[in-house]
Parts: sequence; C-alpha cells; structure tokens
Amino acid sequence: MLAIAKAFSRALGGRGIETLGVRAYAKALGDQSTLPLSTGRPRLVILGTGWGGARLARDIDPKKFDITIISPRNHMVFTPLIASSCVGTLEPRSVTVPITDIQPALRLPQNNFLLAECDAVHTQDRLVECSSTHDGLKFFVQYDVLAIATGSQGSTFGIPGVTEYTMPLRDAANSTDIRTRLIQNWGESSIPGRSPAERARLLHVCVVGGGPTGVEFAGELADFVRKDLAKLDPNRARDMRITLIEADQLLSSFDARLREYAALKLTRAGVHLVKGIVKEVRKDELELKNGAVIPYGLCVWSTGVGPTSFSLSLPFEKTMRGRLAVDDRLRVLARHADGRGPTSLEDVGGGLYLGR
Amino acid sequence: MLAIAKAFSRALGGRGIETLGVRAYAKALGDQSTLPLSTGRPRLVILGTGWGGARLARDIDPKKFDITIISPRNHMVFTPLIASSCVGTLEPRSVTVPITDIQPALRLPQNNFLLAECDAVHTQDRLVECSSTHDGLKFFVQYDVLAIATGSQGSTFGIPGVTEYTMPLRDAANSTDIRTRLIQNWGESSIPGRSPAERARLLHVCVVGGGPTGVEFAGELADFVRKDLAKLDPNRARDMRITLIEADQLLSSFDARLREYAALKLTRAGVHLVKGIVKEVRKDELELKNGAVIPYGLCVWSTGVGPTSFSLSLPFEKTMRGRLAVDDRLRVLARHADGRGPTSLEDVGGGLYLGR
Repeated sequence: MLAIAKAFSRALGGRGIETLGVRAYAKALGDQSTLPLSTGRPRLVILGTGWGGARLARDIDPKKFDITIISPRNHMVFTPLIASSCVGTLEPRSVTVPITDIQPALRLPQNNFLLAECDAVHTQDRLVECSSTHDGLKFFVQYDVLAIATGSQGSTFGIPGVTEYTMPLRDAANSTDIRTRLIQNWGESSIPGRSPAERARLLHVCVVGGGPTGVEFAGELADFVRKDLAKLDPNRARDMRITLIEADQLLSSFDARLREYAALKLTRAGVHLVKGIVKEVRKDELELKNGAVIPYGLCVWSTGVGPTSFSLSLPFEKTMRGRLAVDDRLRVLARHADGRGPTSLEDVGGGLYLGR
Repeated sequence: MLAIAKAFSRALGGRGIETLGVRAYAKALGDQSTLPLSTGRPRLVILGTGWGGARLARDIDPKKFDITIISPRNHMVFTPLIASSCVGTLEPRSVTVPITDIQPALRLPQNNFLLAECDAVHTQDRLVECSSTHDGLKFFVQYDVLAIATGSQGSTFGIPGVTEYTMPLRDAANSTDIRTRLIQNWGESSIPGRSPAERARLLHVCVVGGGPTGVEFAGELADFVRKDLAKLDPNRARDMRITLIEADQLLSSFDARLREYAALKLTRAGVHLVKGIVKEVRKDELELKNGAVIPYGLCVWSTGVGPTSFSLSLPFEKTMRGRLAVDDRLRVLARHADGRGPTSLEDVGGGLYLGR
C-alpha cells in the first residue's frame, strides 16, 4: 500500500474494507469519489483500452449510457504495426490512438477516462475498486454495466530469466525500448578493440516465439537490415544475424499455405529459423533444452499470452485455460449461492467480458 | 572501471597507462585499436555532435581529411525546436539529425562514427583515450588534428535538489521524459478523491530560468494548454498553471524590445512571471530565497550552462569562466614547458575548440 493510500486509511481511523464493508468504505473515502454528474442514464464502466475496450468505446451510443473508461493506458495500441515502430519505419505515436479520439463523447462532463488500475470488482455493491497508476490513490466507481476488457499477459512458462533479460513487444513503450537497445548495440559493436565474439553477440538478435508478433518483428528487422542498414553501414549490416526460435511451428494458428509462405519469406530475408525449446535465459545468452547455448545482444520474447492475475482474481467462472467464461452474449458466468451450476447472471453486476 | 576494462587490464598483466606509458598501453590494447584503413590523408578527430561538431562535420572536405567522430550521441539535436517536442507539436525524432546524414562520407571505410565518451587527450602522443558509452570498453584513437566540441553542461549553482527533482531540457530524451511526466500528471490529477491542493500541484508546471530554452518551453506549453488541451479537457486546461521563475530578467542576452515583447506574449498566454532566486528544490515543492514555497508537479530547470568536467580536465589554458581559451583561429592555447606562455600551440596537437 502506497503512502497516500495509507494516509486515507489513517483518516478513516484505520478502518478499511474489511471492517467497514465496501459501500461504507467507498462512502468514507469522500464525496469526491462519486462522479460529478448523473444524467439518469445507466453508467457503463469499461476496464481496459485494448482491442476489446476500444471497440466497445467506439461503438457504444453515448446517448444511451454515461461512460467511464478505466485503464493504465490512455491510448489503444494498433498491435499489427508495432513491429514496424521498432526499426523506425513508423513512429510509436503513429501506431497508437488516444482513447478520447476513439470516443469523442469522453470529453462531455458526464463521461470520463481515468488513468488507473482496477484492483477488484464488488458485484454486490456494483462498485469497482481502483488505484491511480502512479501514486496508487484508491477510489471507487459505481457501475450499472461493467465491461471487462483487461486483456492478457505474456507467458513465460516459468522459464528462468525471461522477465529479467528479454524484452516483450506489446506496448508502444516496448518498441521504443527495443529501438534504443538496437541503436546501443550497433554503437557498442563498432568500438575499436571489441573482440569478434563480442561483436557477433551484440549484432545477434534472438526472437523467441513464432507467432504473428515474432514473425512480424523478425521480418521487419530483416528488411531494415537489408534495405536501410546496408546503405548506412554495410559492415554492420553484413554481420547482423537474426534467429527465430520456435518450439512447435511458425504461425501455428494459421493454415499450412500461409505458414509455408512465411517460412520461405523469412529464410530468404536471412532469418535463421531454429526449432527448439528455451530452457533458461541468462544475461547475454540463452540455453535450449538440447544443450545449445546461443549468445544474443537483444532477445525479444513473444511466446503467447495467458490470463492476468486480475482476471484470475475475479469472482466469476473460468474456462479450462483460466480465462473468464462467458455465455453467447459475452456475459460472465457465476455460480448460484446454493452451489447450482454456472449460469450467466445479470444480478452479479451485468458484467461483459471482452478479450482473449 | 567496468568489468570489461578490468579484463583488459588483467590481460596486460595489470599494467596500465601509469606503468606502460600511453603509447605502449594503447599498443598493448591490441591492433584492433587502430583504424582499419589509412589513406595517407591526415586524420581529423571531432569530439562531439552538437552545433560545433556537426557544423564542422558538415563543412569539412572528406577528400582532405579522414574523419573520426566520437560522441555519446549519434545525432545532432536542433535545440531551438526541442521545446515543441515536449508537447507533441513535433516528434523528438523530427528535431534530431543523424550525424551520418550530416556527413555522408562517414559511410566510407576510412571514416567512422564511434558511440563513446572521450576521457582524456594525450597531446604528446596525439591520442584520444575513450570508452564506449554502454560497457565502458577502453580504446585509443590517433589524430593529426583534434577538434574539441564537447559542449557545456547545465548549471545548478550548487542549489540543493536540482539534480534529484528537476528535469533539464537539452536532449531529445529530456523532451520525451517531460512529455511522459505531463501525461502522467494529467492522468493523476483527474482521479476521483484527489484533494484540490494535490490536484493544483499536479497541474502546476514550474520553469526555472528565463533564457531562450525556458521562454520557448513556457510559451509552447501555454499554447498547447490554450489551443489543444482546452478542447480535449476544458476542466484540466482551466486548472493548469505555468510559472516562470527568473532571478534577473527574461532573455537577458537579448535587447530590450525583444525582452518586452516576450514578457507581453508570455503574460497574455497565461504564464505567471516570478522574479526570484531558488534556494532549494524538494520533491513536489521548491523554496525561494524570500521564503515563498511553491508546489509543482513538474519543474523544468534551464538556468544556463558552464564548462564540463571533461573540458576543465584538459591540459589547455582556460578563460576566467573556466572555458577553453582559444586564439583567433579557434586553436587552443597552452603554456610552454619553460613557463612562458600562453600561446596557441600547433605542437600540443593542433587542437581546435568549438563550443560555448
């Protein structure tokens, strides 16, 4: 709990949700926790500004609902183009869209966007419990309909070193980090006195995961090396190596013709395709299950996604893979108090689930 | 000393410059420390890619010199436009120019750009001692003519808290940091339950220093607030405050008519002009010498520049203000061994000084 949340807790005489109950606690946080304007329309609260949240925000009729959008990102990322922004073909800003541009009615007084994380959903009281992204100030928002579009998180499959040493590619900030690292490695590789082995390591980019993101990134980088870097610095372009590591097969969710086409294109562009399972990632090198040790200057990790700890914590039914279970109208499922089996429940708070 | 430099030192049997002498040490670092190609032309080494270094790089005839440029930045920053990139009018990339675009001959094999810091100049041996920016790998470069264009560094005047809590505005990375902080503060300010005082603090931008950078930044931000933010979020635009603090007067190096015009424009745009001297900067607030305490959400520090520790360390004559003294052909001055002097000395290594 951050300092400001502690101060609030002190102001309430040390009493929190546990002793006061959600409704009293939310009320005790002060009148400022309530929204400034009530038009009499039902309030739609959308959690998240990814594909699901942004699409709903765009399509919803602001004459029928008052809208509150809560997300740690004030923009949507157009993910198919994010790989291009790593090599400067596009600027990161060109692959993001502010949520206020997607739904201009957010500028009306009854609607708002809040830069915050959602920590819990209290279905009995129809309240979401949130904290601001930076200083963790706690607040509650009342909803009539709740849309949960908080997305997924990258899977590491418990492989040691992935979090510490590899770079993900999901947000605009990730692409800036990758670009900075590439420029840094190129700079370091040209220093006089650099050993050939170290130079080779610095100029080796490893991509783990042959899904759409990994394939896009490897392809974009290979194009950049052949078409741009070759003119800028032929020495460095010649020595750059790109390796794509995949445990199963490239683009496994696509059909065989597309997979074959992608493999051909990547190979021709100079990308080394390696079939293997990563056992451990260490600083500057990774090890495969077959014992091979591969030094790298940059390792991009993109092996698929799983449910977030937030969605796992929600009091709704889950699928076998840990995702929120929904009915054919995307309503979340809940169990009745008497133990009868999952059914979509309007009375748990009209929750929708948008995401993968 | 970083790990890799230590390894080198070990490889040389623990002997460094002190025991071996510069020439033997440089030689012992290996043949890779020498440049790949010698055309017989004199080698011009330029330290720095700011205004001085970039201008020389652009104007030099690559048929007369082989060129090595050494700088921790691979680009020049067009500083007059950097304030615009803080509020998104321009992208940071649009106010920078890669040094290889400024002098395309850098792509020829005999010329090169090295992403590194210069640590020392050994005039007797005509060698510059450098280390790579990221891992500190040490290397030497031989020069025939040396141009020193390493620029200046921001002055804090020894005021406590400036380094820790304020943000400078000199590099492209600074402008990205400022933009990120502004967006973050705007997000935090709108969280329900935020106290009015804290909201006011988050929306208060303090600029210390009324020189060109401070004035440009305050003006750009005021324009953005009135013209863009007012449409996007009228509530927030109304509550934003910008304060410019200057100890002496605005744009003191310009003539009276320009100073008056700038003050009028800034005041009309809603910038508060405060005459005062900062005594201390603390997290979230600063204190003036007159005792006034001013809370801020962002404090941009731009109170002028002084000599860098690198230029102070150079074995050349200095001016009263600690800058390198030069003759009318920009050659550095040195004292003769017999104490006569200062005179511009070709034989100390043909050093030029470009900068302020």
